[in-house]
Amino acid sequence: MATPALTPSSTYNPGMDNALPAALAAELSALLGAEGWRTDEAARRDHGEDDSRQWAMPAAVAIPRDRNEVAAIVRVCRTQRVPIVARGAGTGTTGAAVPFEGGVVVSFARMNRILAIRPEDRCAVVEPGVRNGELQQALQAHGLFWPPDPSSFEHCTIGGNLATNAGGPRAVKYGATRDNVLGLVAVSGSGEILRCGGSWSKNATGYDLTHLLVGSEGTLGLIVEATLRLVPRPPLQAGLRAFYRDALTAAGAVARLMSRPQVPAMLEFMDARSIELLRRNGSEVPEAGAMLLVEADGDEETLPLALAALGDAAEGEGLIALDVAMDGLARDRLWAARRALSPALRSIAPGKINEDVVVPVSRMPELVAAMQALSARAGLPIVVFGHAGNGNLHVNILYHPDDAAETARAQAALPEVFAQVLALGGTLSGEHGIGVAKRDYMRHAFDPATLSAMRAVKAALDPDGILNPGKVLPPVD
Amino acid sequence: MATPALTPSSTYNPGMDNALPAALAAELSALLGAEGWRTDEAARRDHGEDDSRQWAMPAAVAIPRDRNEVAAIVRVCRTQRVPIVARGAGTGTTGAAVPFEGGVVVSFARMNRILAIRPEDRCAVVEPGVRNGELQQALQAHGLFWPPDPSSFEHCTIGGNLATNAGGPRAVKYGATRDNVLGLVAVSGSGEILRCGGSWSKNATGYDLTHLLVGSEGTLGLIVEATLRLVPRPPLQAGLRAFYRDALTAAGAVARLMSRPQVPAMLEFMDARSIELLRRNGSEVPEAGAMLLVEADGDEETLPLALAALGDAAEGEGLIALDVAMDGLARDRLWAARRALSPALRSIAPGKINEDVVVPVSRMPELVAAMQALSARAGLPIVVFGHAGNGNLHVNILYHPDDAAETARAQAALPEVFAQVLALGGTLSGEHGIGVAKRDYMRHAFDPATLSAMRAVKAALDPDGILNPGKVLPPVD
Repeated sequence: MATPALTPSSTYNPGMDNALPAALAAELSALLGAEGWRTDEAARRDHGEDDSRQWAMPAAVAIPRDRNEVAAIVRVCRTQRVPIVARGAGTGTTGAAVPFEGGVVVSFARMNRILAIRPEDRCAVVEPGVRNGELQQALQAHGLFWPPDPSSFEHCTIGGNLATNAGGPRAVKYGATRDNVLGLVAVSGSGEILRCGGSWSKNATGYDLTHLLVGSEGTLGLIVEATLRLVPRPPLQAGLRAFYRDALTAAGAVARLMSRPQVPAMLEFMDARSIELLRRNGSEVPEAGAMLLVEADGDEETLPLALAALGDAAEGEGLIALDVAMDGLARDRLWAARRALSPALRSIAPGKINEDVVVPVSRMPELVAAMQALSARAGLPIVVFGHAGNGNLHVNILYHPDDAAETARAQAALPEVFAQVLALGGTLSGEHGIGVAKRDYMRHAFDPATLSAMRAVKAALDPDGILNPGKVLPPVD
Repeated sequence: MATPALTPSSTYNPGMDNALPAALAAELSALLGAEGWRTDEAARRDHGEDDSRQWAMPAAVAIPRDRNEVAAIVRVCRTQRVPIVARGAGTGTTGAAVPFEGGVVVSFARMNRILAIRPEDRCAVVEPGVRNGELQQALQAHGLFWPPDPSSFEHCTIGGNLATNAGGPRAVKYGATRDNVLGLVAVSGSGEILRCGGSWSKNATGYDLTHLLVGSEGTLGLIVEATLRLVPRPPLQAGLRAFYRDALTAAGAVARLMSRPQVPAMLEFMDARSIELLRRNGSEVPEAGAMLLVEADGDEETLPLALAALGDAAEGEGLIALDVAMDGLARDRLWAARRALSPALRSIAPGKINEDVVVPVSRMPELVAAMQALSARAGLPIVVFGHAGNGNLHVNILYHPDDAAETARAQAALPEVFAQVLALGGTLSGEHGIGVAKRDYMRHAFDPATLSAMRAVKAALDPDGILNPGKVLPPVD
């Protein structure tokens, strides 16, 4: 079944090397000092790209030390409508942190302190430049963790996690970033410092600016402080690996697994293509149409019960094989297959378009079938895997970037991916965000009235449109 | 310790009996028909009050059948800037649904269908007029529930739950309304139909209008459809009741209970005054400085473990008595004390100001002490109880409404309650919302820049300010 392809209808303006007005540059230089204001080419080059492998040159890099400096940068830039692009570690995959319109990149590299860990209130207060992994490390002594676990956790910053509403496998039980933020301090596009939410987990006081700012990719405000919800860390984990005849029977198992009061701590899916690829690359997995990796967490008493319940739910029509791993080593072996997948993908083709689409859980088999059909039409391998419990699947289109025809076919397949996802009642992104990569598909994901409402909200918080211009929202037709 | 009292600095304009422009009334009457457009005094009177016991007369009551009628009402009203107040069951306690500026009350009594229950996607799609209890009933056959459990659940509508971000005891484990909504369809103040979110549990696609609309009390949009997150229902519940020397040692127990990976399904607090009152009214509870009611949920295997873990955590400094109730009858007995509290409150004084403030969990003992001091200063009983796991406490000021001096002292005490709460790093409301009752305290809860940002968001979605005017946000100084 072919769905009419979506067409990107605008282009952005890459790589401008615009200079700043001299007086403005002088003012910011005086304000921020030599360590906080960099205009040398090396610094600008280092702050112009992200993991989308796109790149553009900012006019300057500001590295503020505190919220007042951030507010001053915004106020000064606003006088001349100079674009401002917030930047964490640059691990984003959508071009959201790339300064396509030049201007000032604001790096949070020096606002990287954990300000407080308050176990009794189950929250931590952090600056945006703190790395995700660094916070997790600091929380271990308290028996707590912060749920968002993107695969880049060692490098990515909490500011970046907040900007993109980052997730990971744990989101199925513990939620993504938006679900784990209690309060924010942010600088709006008019240079005002906004404070919303706080160290409490229930709030019916005024408008929820906190969750609005999360996932807005630096287009509504620059987050300068976050109060994060912490969760007690279960001491033990154990896993299951189940192989099914096809995606349909695996999706049936997902529905059974998700209908138990004991929610899996992770619930990952791989399609037939992924399994085939792993087998070809020497992983010891059986021939199968789909695989689920399921994890339970708990303590010595509860974990065996949780695992048994998940095992029961995994059994059913289409099950080919079920492995259980109670201890750490066995668990590592089960997860090795998932870890082997990325290298295996590179072994067939160096180019990869990786989209993190979302569909209702019940529609996953249709998405997998549609991607197999698209693969046949495009003459390119397409591999589907991801976070089954949330219906958040990574669709990987593989191609050789030095082959112009393959590259063109890969690019042409992408709009068809989104068209299928939307036809199945899904949406464009579950954890990576929109940036520029998916911006022009927003017109298909939302009707004009809803996009207008989003634009009005943008104008409300950033009246001159200086915060990360050209990201998230498509240009007005 | 006395904190300077906050002063409400404006008044609203109650009870206007303004007439609608004749042409506008005729247009809406023709559009909605006799059953959908009521201007008789009985209907207007019936739709003018809520549980705040405030009352005002709307010019008309519209009872639309679908979203297109809602959009048409808003568009027509907008032409003449006629106020529109959305109304569910009128169980709110803050005056949010009272039409103080007259205009049109939009009742969702005829938009009361459960449109879909989709167990495999763990979601339900409902119209706003569905009653909370009715949905819970319909979900039982599927082994699912929707977490929000306000005490008015039998009467209140889901639209009202969404408008106020309603909660209840279960929120400690399962979250309040905002945490359990996946998508919304809403009509903005410009009469446009907005669609945000959907049947998926992970979303990084554009701005989060869904969670912004939740808790906005009908001031940003009229919700006409909601996709709700459902949760598998654990088959069994069991409870603990623990008495402590004082609020401080009870708060220590709360911190211990909340530091376990097995989160309590409920965790309720009562202060010394509440216990004293119960004892005076014949409840069989020991003399104590604080009480915790703790509930675990699970199945036959997991529940005893969960209960034992919570029992361990409840033990510690200051514990006076600990009762465990494994079965339904014993559990009912434990909860009887909580149920007996409201009638007991009425037995000492017929008047009650009940505020649902929130403080960080660790600051609860200070709040309780401050309320005891305030009680002594005001010469009025003040009783504190509520949802300890969220730091969401109900502060009840008791007085005789026919005693002018007592009434004045009760009113004068209220600003001091909020001042204390804010001084402890808390906020005005955890589950009731702001309405008009707490509107003028918003100036103290938020700084001017943040309030301005909220006003800008309001103007973005309701450019003419016709949606529930005068609620949530204080007038501009």
